[in-house]
This record gives sequence, C-alpha cells and structure tokens, in this order.
Amino acid sequence: MVNRSDVHYFGAGPAPLPTAVLERASQVLLNYKDKGIGLCEISHRSPDANDILADAKQALTTLLDIPDDYEILFLQSGGSGEFSATVYNLVSIWVEKKRAKIAEEVGDDKAEVLKRLRKAVDEELKLDYLVTGSWSLKASQEATRLVGAQHVNVALDARKANGGKFGTIPPESEWNLTPRKSGGGPALVYFCDNETVDGVEFPAFPHSLEGEDAPLVCADMSSNFISRKVDVPKYAVIFGGAQKNIGNTGIAIVILRKSLLPPASMPASPDLLRELNLPVGPIILDYPTIAKNNSLYNTLPIFDVWVASQVMTGLVNAYGVKRIGGQEEISNDKARQIYETLDRYPEIYRVVPDKAVRSRMNICFRVHGGDAEKEKAFLAGAEKRGLLGLKGHRSVGGIRASNYNAVSLSGAKSLVAYLEDYAKAA
Amino acid sequence: MVNRSDVHYFGAGPAPLPTAVLERASQVLLNYKDKGIGLCEISHRSPDANDILADAKQALTTLLDIPDDYEILFLQSGGSGEFSATVYNLVSIWVEKKRAKIAEEVGDDKAEVLKRLRKAVDEELKLDYLVTGSWSLKASQEATRLVGAQHVNVALDARKANGGKFGTIPPESEWNLTPRKSGGGPALVYFCDNETVDGVEFPAFPHSLEGEDAPLVCADMSSNFISRKVDVPKYAVIFGGAQKNIGNTGIAIVILRKSLLPPASMPASPDLLRELNLPVGPIILDYPTIAKNNSLYNTLPIFDVWVASQVMTGLVNAYGVKRIGGQEEISNDKARQIYETLDRYPEIYRVVPDKAVRSRMNICFRVHGGDAEKEKAFLAGAEKRGLLGLKGHRSVGGIRASNYNAVSLSGAKSLVAYLEDYAKAA
Repeated sequence: MVNRSDVHYFGAGPAPLPTAVLERASQVLLNYKDKGIGLCEISHRSPDANDILADAKQALTTLLDIPDDYEILFLQSGGSGEFSATVYNLVSIWVEKKRAKIAEEVGDDKAEVLKRLRKAVDEELKLDYLVTGSWSLKASQEATRLVGAQHVNVALDARKANGGKFGTIPPESEWNLTPRKSGGGPALVYFCDNETVDGVEFPAFPHSLEGEDAPLVCADMSSNFISRKVDVPKYAVIFGGAQKNIGNTGIAIVILRKSLLPPASMPASPDLLRELNLPVGPIILDYPTIAKNNSLYNTLPIFDVWVASQVMTGLVNAYGVKRIGGQEEISNDKARQIYETLDRYPEIYRVVPDKAVRSRMNICFRVHGGDAEKEKAFLAGAEKRGLLGLKGHRSVGGIRASNYNAVSLSGAKSLVAYLEDYAKAA
Repeated sequence: MVNRSDVHYFGAGPAPLPTAVLERASQVLLNYKDKGIGLCEISHRSPDANDILADAKQALTTLLDIPDDYEILFLQSGGSGEFSATVYNLVSIWVEKKRAKIAEEVGDDKAEVLKRLRKAVDEELKLDYLVTGSWSLKASQEATRLVGAQHVNVALDARKANGGKFGTIPPESEWNLTPRKSGGGPALVYFCDNETVDGVEFPAFPHSLEGEDAPLVCADMSSNFISRKVDVPKYAVIFGGAQKNIGNTGIAIVILRKSLLPPASMPASPDLLRELNLPVGPIILDYPTIAKNNSLYNTLPIFDVWVASQVMTGLVNAYGVKRIGGQEEISNDKARQIYETLDRYPEIYRVVPDKAVRSRMNICFRVHGGDAEKEKAFLAGAEKRGLLGLKGHRSVGGIRASNYNAVSLSGAKSLVAYLEDYAKAA
C-alpha cells in the first residue's frame, strides 16, 4: 500500500488536491452537517447548496480581488464547452448591438435593417484568436466550426516563427489584431493564458489589448487559475475548468463582466442569428440564463462546488491580505527551482518553450534530446521515488512536471533532488 | 448528530445513494487502489480511468440488455444539455441524409442541390415532441430556440385536455405525429419517459412509435433510468442525468443507436447547417466526436463515472439473471404500497396525476386539497420521523415522494406508516 504521503503527484489535470480537503470531503460525502444526508445527495436548491455557492464565490472574489461589476458562474461545460460558450455569447451580443444601432438609423423598416445587418456581419464580424498552444488552437478551431472561417481571424499563430511547433509568443508588434473601432471592432479577442500541453504561459497581460476601445478579451485560465494575480477589469470573460488548481473535474468557472449581461447587453434572438447564418448555442451555455439563475438553471454538481470552495477558502485563510499573491510567490519559487535545475544540466535536459514564456504551471522538458528509451527510464526512476504523473501529453511526448497549487514545496524539492541525481548519474 | 440510518430521503434529485457505495467512495477519494492518489486526481486517460469507464458500460449493458449495435456515451451536459444535443445531432443527420439523396438525383450542380435542400428543409424538417410534463415542455422549448417554431411539431400537449395542467397522457389516437415516410418522416420524436415534477410516467413504449419506418425516438429517462426493463432497440437515443437512480450530478448517460454514427450516418457540415439557417452545436455535444473518443474528448469526471459503475454493478450482483427486472419488482412494489395508502384516504390525500400514468418514481400528491398550512404541517411531521425531501417541486407545490432505487423497502414502509398515522389522526 502506497500512502498519499509517499508520493508527489505532478499530473497535468486532474491534478492533486489538498489532502485536508479530501479528508473533509470523504466525511461530507456520507453526512453533510450531520443531517444524515451526504453532499452528493442534497438538493442543489437547498439553503445548504446556496451557502456553498456563496462561499465559493466569496472566496474567489477575495482571492482575485474581483470587482462588483463582475459575475461568477459555475457550469458543467468543462473548459472545452467554454470555447463554444464565449463564441455563442459574444457573437450574439455583437449582432444585437449592431442591429440596435442600425435600427436607430433606419427606423422601422425591418427588411432594410436585416439587409444592412447582414452586410455588417459579412464585412465586419471578426473573432480574434492568439494561438500559442494546443488549447488556443482548439478554441480557434471550434470558433471556425461555429461561425465559419471567414469570421475567425487567427491574429497570431505562434508555430509559424518556430518551425511549426509551439513554444514561443512572438512580439505583439507581429500580431495581426482586428483594428479597434469605437463601438465596433472584433466580437472578442481570445487567448489561453497558460498552455497546459506546451508549457507556454503569457508572462503578463498583452499590452495591445489594453487602453481606450479595448476589445472584449476572453481568456482561458484553466491551468493557471488562482496561481497569480489577475487584473480582472482587463477581461470580459475569464474561464477555466476546475480540475487543475481549484478542484474536481465537473465544473468550469466563468468570471464575466456584468455589462455583458442584460439589460446592459442584450443577446440577439435565436431567430435572427439563424437568419444571419450564425449559430445558436444550447441553453446550458447561455450566460444570461446561467447568471439569472445563480448558476442553478439546471442541476449543478454541488459537491464539486464545495471542493472548490474548500480549496479557495484554504488559500484565503493561508495568505490573508496577500490574497493570491501569497500563492503566486510560492508557485514562482517552486517553478524557479525546477527550471534552474533543468538549466544547470543543458547536456541532459532541454526545456521545450522559450525562456521568456515558460509556464510556471506546466514545466515541459526533454531528457537526452528526447530519446524515447531514456525518457522512459527517467520516468521509471521518478516513479521509484514516488514522483508520479510526469509523462508529457500524448500529442507532444517528453516530460511534463505540473506545478499546480497543491504540489507542495517539498514535492518540488523532491523533484529537484531527482533531477540533480539523475543528471549526475547520467 | 443525525446518522444516515436515522433518515429516509425522498429527494427528487440529487437523490439518495447506497451508503455502501458512499463508504467506498470516501476511501477512494483519498487513495485509489492504494496508489497514493485519489480518484478525483487520477488522469482521465489512465488505464484505471479506462477500466472504470469499461466497467460502467458493461454494468449498464448487462442491466438493460443493451445490444451490440448501441453505443454508451458519458457527457458533462446534464439532462438539459441533452435536450439540445438530440436536436443538434439528429437534425444534422436528417439534413445530410436529405442532401445525399438530392445530390444523387441532381448530380454535381451544387447550387441546385442547395436550392432543393433548402426547400426540403422548409417543407419537411419536423421534430415531434410529446409534451407530458415540465421536462418535455422544456425540451420542446429548447428545440424551438434552436431550430425555430416552424420545425417543431408539438404532437401532444397533455395540458390541453386537462384544464391546463399536466397529469394525463391522452390516448395515442389523439396525438398529431408527423406522418412516417420511407426514408423520411420527422428528424426525431421526443418524449420524457418519466416526468419528475409532475409525477407522470409512460406506462409502456408508445405503440404509435413502433413498426415499419418507425421514427427516431429520443427519450429522456433521467428520473426512471434503470428502474425497469427497457426495450432498447425501440429507441434511437436514450439519455438521462445520473443524479437520480445512477449516481452523482456531473454526468449524463446516452445510449445511442450506432447507425446514427459515422460511417452509417454522417453529420452535415457546419457550413451547410448555417447556410440552411440551422444551428451548429458545440463540439462537447457532438455525438460522433464523443463516441470516437470513448467519451474522453475532453476531461470526464471519472469519480462520477466510478460512482455510477459501483451503483450499477451493485444491481447486477444483486439481481443476477433478473437484471433490471429485479429492481423493477422492488420499485413497483414500493410505489404500489405508497399509492395504495394514499388511495385509502381520499378525504386526506389526492394523487395528482391520473391513475393510468402515475409515476413509480415520483409520487406527487396533495394533502387536504392542497391547503398550504396543512401541507407544511404534514412535511414537518414527516421530518420529525426522519422522512426528508418530501416537498414538491417549487413550480407545482404539494408533496412529492421520490421512490428511486436507493430508497429502501423499509424507507417506503416508514413513509406508508406515516401516511397511515397522519390520516388516522387528521
């Protein structure tokens, strides 16, 4: 029997969870608040469920200093579902805004409004994607499926300047963003803040997406959520699956600018969207519906929300006024130690991404230039020391040490020690 | 402190789970198979996760005697997401089938194919809905959102013959189904096998949906899944959220006829669907994608699949060759005892739905003609005896005793005893 204390788990997600949270979870599964019913069994419409939702929102708000004009949503979509949800929702808003403006000019002539609106969609509807890794690529592909290639502007494909492989983020001057326009511009600009598969992380919020008439920025933070400070007001939508830093697979969290909800922003009618050859999304991904129902439009996995709430409340209590800054220091320190060790043995290890964009969360490297047999031996040696989950993503191979919040400093140090020992013995 | 053994829980979903399963769950949360990692932490692409998926499929296949030409999918959509998924997928198949047929007749003239296809969509595309309660109503409303009212045929609105309220299923001779046609007919016929809110259950598979050129039948079995025998070959799609009879909120299960997957049935291209003013669904609801990836297109909550697997394997072991028939006998017996007691005191209790369509799963009744104060007192009395979760759905009020598989015979008997005592004292 291997105990939890015998292993350090570096899986890319689902990721390790704090043992203390799992210990409490194993109790509440059977009996929540001593009421004789477990947490997977209580109604999502009960006062207890409402309290859990409120606690989770409060903890996330505190950690990331989320302003009042943002809404927090929980959905069952997974991160992949949010690839679609951002498109459906922001295209719908773009269309309705445009329609309202045209109607103001044209008046009651519905046929004329439709004609001009169709022209505007044809000529102006653009969704900008910064493709810096496998996940933003998938998101851009989903946008293309949903609205058609003519509306998707890949403003950056980071593979192009890097021999067809991800691993860099070219300078912003080389990005081909849709021009801003007062009251216009792209329906959204999308990026993935941290690319789990490729180990590429945006070092900071892109300067090009700031300032007057800034576009609506959607960011996937699935794999670096609550690992560093986030300047929330710069984003229209932040989303992430919970299964890395926050909790269980089963919920995605969306932080949404309230001005994107009614009455400030109205969605286009489904009939109009179809008429314009644009997609109509499922009701379970409709942000106005989810927000209006406090994330309880349909049954929400309250157990998963509870786990997230426990994890986040733990960080609030641990870091006090530092908020997520406390976690950021630790995350950075763990990543620094691992990267420094890898860099110390360039003849043995090669970090995959460029130094400037190395992910603090997913540390991707090759051993002996990517020799398959030697990497297998490296992984076997790690397992012997209880260092698990280090295999790279099946699409790229190699080694990946995921350094999520629940990986302890001692876990990182154990990995460092193994990297040292392996390099010295090689 | 109230223990699990002190209460009987009649919640409508999330529903009670077998205590033995929860006890095992509380262990594997911390350490799965003594590997030092918990079940919410392991990779959904690990051999262990694959085994869990295979076990869940095998147990469901055994229980319901699912033939080889059916596929089992797990999705995070919830039941509500499947309202949309059935529409997206079956409309797409209908369109592509029609397109291929027209192309066969017309040849390479793409403009002509599109013209005829558009005409066919306008004139022939119909989705039939049997609306017998709140959930089939919601499903029909979602279909209308997605494809437009002109394509949705409410073949039955059970409220019409019942004073505007659900509670009956009028005879099939009164249904207004879209006529069958060899190689044509409606894109789907939809019904909800058991209406959780209204306590209405189809006593048997509708005769009108059988036979030659039978339409593609989609059935929502969220609240009576694995509670009785199902003649699977009669259905194109059976789906249900897991959180009633099967497991946790977090997964929906879809049983899908394989001939609805490629290469037997091809989906229409997203470009064509938009061109035809039809909706394009999100990739996470795309059955071909989910099937091709063995339900692992994106991260699946393996813990929830495990719970479902444990519950279903428990039934397989308990009922042996009787399969789900063993559970059916018990479910029927529990429901019969409760209904008989209610019927014995007509001056106190009134069962809401018609006798012929009473749900074995959700027993909806009023106390003292629905007097609010008295029903409140009835519920308070029940709680004193540890009989919990009996409040009716907020949209209809009254009392609802949900009689899911995990409600034991002794639970049903305790409720019967309370019904007797309450009536005698009233």
